[in-house]
Amino acid sequence: MKGLRNMLLSGHLGCGRWLLPVLGTGLLVLAMQQSAVAQVPASTQVVRLAKLEIYPNQVEGYKAALREGVETAMRVEPGVLTLYAVQEKANPTRFTLLEIYASPAAYQGHIQTPHFLKYKTGTKDMVKSLELIDTVPLVPGMRIK
Amino acid sequence: MKGLRNMLLSGHLGCGRWLLPVLGTGLLVLAMQQSAVAQVPASTQVVRLAKLEIYPNQVEGYKAALREGVETAMRVEPGVLTLYAVQEKANPTRFTLLEIYASPAAYQGHIQTPHFLKYKTGTKDMVKSLELIDTVPLVPGMRIK
Repeated sequence: MKGLRNMLLSGHLGCGRWLLPVLGTGLLVLAMQQSAVAQVPASTQVVRLAKLEIYPNQVEGYKAALREGVETAMRVEPGVLTLYAVQEKANPTRFTLLEIYASPAAYQGHIQTPHFLKYKTGTKDMVKSLELIDTVPLVPGMRIK
Repeated sequence: MKGLRNMLLSGHLGCGRWLLPVLGTGLLVLAMQQSAVAQVPASTQVVRLAKLEIYPNQVEGYKAALREGVETAMRVEPGVLTLYAVQEKANPTRFTLLEIYASPAAYQGHIQTPHFLKYKTGTKDMVKSLELIDTVPLVPGMRIK
């Protein structure tokens, strides 16, 4: 790809200056899609940790409701970039979610969806505590391979 | 793709039974690569949270060292699936990493790499506390779009 880029930069394809930004942008998009670490700051993203403690006798029900909620959100909401949920092995009543939304608007849209409201209503008596922690990602655009 | 799969299943391509599992596997791999949620359990994965508190006057130095460490690991270690690090907005001395390794062997390899040892040695006087929390992912194979 570097060779093609050099050809473009040096004008060897003879296509004129207008072609360079067009193809350059295409190559950049291609490179970003193929890389596990995108090269542009994801400055509009909302990145948050949610920490939950669930009542012990509600853990299995909570997991089912959470799984349905996050899988639906990932499938139907383009602006929900991840809802990566983990359960602690040593303390199975404790859950942490890494939530990444493309923008504040994507987050606001998410919390009005039927699947989120179903999850929220269905689990309200299962959740002993919920802590929402706003964060800044160290490497914006970091992905999961 | 569903159309192609139906053609294969019904034998309309007339290629015999041997072709179905071969092409089926190829389509499955393709689908997994293109999906934000892989459809097979990632049972060998090691999924962990690391929680760190950094001394206040060391936060910027720590961020630089951590950034170099995670970017290098993501670039050169196929078995490091993510090292997604966040800094809390309200408590900027607190960091959390979601660490996903493809297998226990990938994790053992990671902690012997030059870049990990450089990070670990270079930051040992910056870290006030470190807590490592073994977890189980709710949706194995969940990705970041």
